[in-house]
Amino acid sequence: MKIIRTRDYKIFVGDFWEALDEFLKVAKYSKIIILIDENTRRQCLPIFLSKIKMENAVLIEIPSGEMHKNIETCQTIWRQMIENQIGRNALMINLGGGVIGDMGGFCASTFKRGINFIQIPTTLLSQVDASIGGKLGIDFGRVKNSVGLFKNPKAVFINSDFLNTLPKREIRSGFAEMIKHALIADVAVWEELKKIEELGKINWLQHIIFCLKSKKQIVEADPFEKNDRKKLNFGHTIGHAIESLALEIKHTLLHGEAIAAGVVCESWLSMKKADLSKASLIEISDCILKIYGKVEIEESSFSNLLTLMKNDKKNEGTGINFTLLSKPGESLVNNICSEDLVIESLRYYMNL
Amino acid sequence: MKIIRTRDYKIFVGDFWEALDEFLKVAKYSKIIILIDENTRRQCLPIFLSKIKMENAVLIEIPSGEMHKNIETCQTIWRQMIENQIGRNALMINLGGGVIGDMGGFCASTFKRGINFIQIPTTLLSQVDASIGGKLGIDFGRVKNSVGLFKNPKAVFINSDFLNTLPKREIRSGFAEMIKHALIADVAVWEELKKIEELGKINWLQHIIFCLKSKKQIVEADPFEKNDRKKLNFGHTIGHAIESLALEIKHTLLHGEAIAAGVVCESWLSMKKADLSKASLIEISDCILKIYGKVEIEESSFSNLLTLMKNDKKNEGTGINFTLLSKPGESLVNNICSEDLVIESLRYYMNL
Repeated sequence: MKIIRTRDYKIFVGDFWEALDEFLKVAKYSKIIILIDENTRRQCLPIFLSKIKMENAVLIEIPSGEMHKNIETCQTIWRQMIENQIGRNALMINLGGGVIGDMGGFCASTFKRGINFIQIPTTLLSQVDASIGGKLGIDFGRVKNSVGLFKNPKAVFINSDFLNTLPKREIRSGFAEMIKHALIADVAVWEELKKIEELGKINWLQHIIFCLKSKKQIVEADPFEKNDRKKLNFGHTIGHAIESLALEIKHTLLHGEAIAAGVVCESWLSMKKADLSKASLIEISDCILKIYGKVEIEESSFSNLLTLMKNDKKNEGTGINFTLLSKPGESLVNNICSEDLVIESLRYYMNL
Repeated sequence: MKIIRTRDYKIFVGDFWEALDEFLKVAKYSKIIILIDENTRRQCLPIFLSKIKMENAVLIEIPSGEMHKNIETCQTIWRQMIENQIGRNALMINLGGGVIGDMGGFCASTFKRGINFIQIPTTLLSQVDASIGGKLGIDFGRVKNSVGLFKNPKAVFINSDFLNTLPKREIRSGFAEMIKHALIADVAVWEELKKIEELGKINWLQHIIFCLKSKKQIVEADPFEKNDRKKLNFGHTIGHAIESLALEIKHTLLHGEAIAAGVVCESWLSMKKADLSKASLIEISDCILKIYGKVEIEESSFSNLLTLMKNDKKNEGTGINFTLLSKPGESLVNNICSEDLVIESLRYYMNL
């Protein structure tokens, strides 16, 4: 087991069970709530309960999927916390993917003005992306993560064993965040990742640790996203809009699948505005297409997508703010692109 | 104008308009939202706009009253923020009483993971009670303030001129918090307050400043209510339950009116468990009854009231946790009282 120390808490990566047991013993919480969905109840909870002795834990189950990451689900969580007379000295354990972690953390942080929570991310995406940075929240009013707050968990526990329970598509979704981390910060890792042909054969642990360390460095330098933390948004301005739109028309598109499309579009913008070479653009586009294929985008949805981008947290005023690549491994924040240019980038992707 | 400095922000008390104008000029917010209700739109907004030049401020109006301090109203606020494309660099000005301040602060602190807000409390209650302590939130699932968080405003602006716009009953409601502040911390102030016969003739400024300084001292010593901050809950454990129950049956009872009843019940508990003299109990009861009369409580609602108390944030485990008085001006936290004793205290109040 490896321990990554952030300023406020530790991330235990690997065979963490003994460390978790110790954590729970030391803290003496009055009650433990475990937040799960129907998948993690089946796949992860039995593993958890076979390792950690739990008496009287309160189980709260919510339906899986981004379409349930909303204020209605929060209300069912808060309501069950009240029904179970959860006090301020309780602990919430979020056992699941990004939705469980983001929404569970938000509900814990706002219940009776805040109870403690720990994250046990069980998907590749949440392990690499949601373990650091303290971003919690839900989707609201057509805008992803528009309601939420910054709050760190008491600890994070990551075990790549949980990944064996995941469908291939979920692994692929998480892999998109890895590609992003490599592209914004480490060309050597990018060189390695782009050669990967078969996601089923990877030993993920080293890659997870790379992402965590890279993200930690960026987030600690700029916790509230005033500047360099925006690097992490590469691929996400257009990606989030694609994801939100898919959510509206109930088309199931995973976060990483949308981000992969966003990475291609924003790499094209990088060529136009940040001197990314054409060769690099092609290399990135090829890598993404090989793994993800293409998301269907209609010309008729452009104006919807632009509205969604303008409502993104990172945007104010005219134009749309992007993080772009000057080359693989190097990124620049605060590049304003016109709506026309954004549309051109979408056309580039559609015509690939 | 007087400035009270807390650790994070300043409270401007008195003729604050110039200071507010300066604050807004220096900060250069991208947009200003003013949260109001139908009362403050009519009574306070014209005063505000006659003093502060505002172009393009976004007005969000919500219905007044504690029954609207809920997640549904939050959703209408967040939705209007999204429709008006509010970015992270915007400022929310909460112009109104406790409901506006608590809910507006909560919505601001959770919108796009947090935008800045300032409080301009316009009722006596919110001026003395909501200006310090960073408690934000809404009522949820029958429990007052069960969803919320701790977050300080960027500044607070208090002007007793706004009090002239208030109905007498609102003034009386705020006065209950003043009585509480005196009883838990300052016998000399209590001696002064208990002599007051006519609330219409008071110069409130000095009393407001006393409460702010007293609360500041308590809160700064214990910001997250681990210990001594619980002193501020005197009168509130039973008072909140009475208030919640009234809310459910749509009986309009103001916060301070419920707290006044709670102060009497909890003074009786203080006599039983914390050596408050019978003479002091009678003095307190007389003072409250003289000003507030009596809230109707039915024997049939006892079990409901107890359930509400047990769901209070301050409670875990068996018994109910109270802050009690050892004498006027001195309070003790963490006194566990049995349900039977609490019922007796309610009977004492009913039989007065």
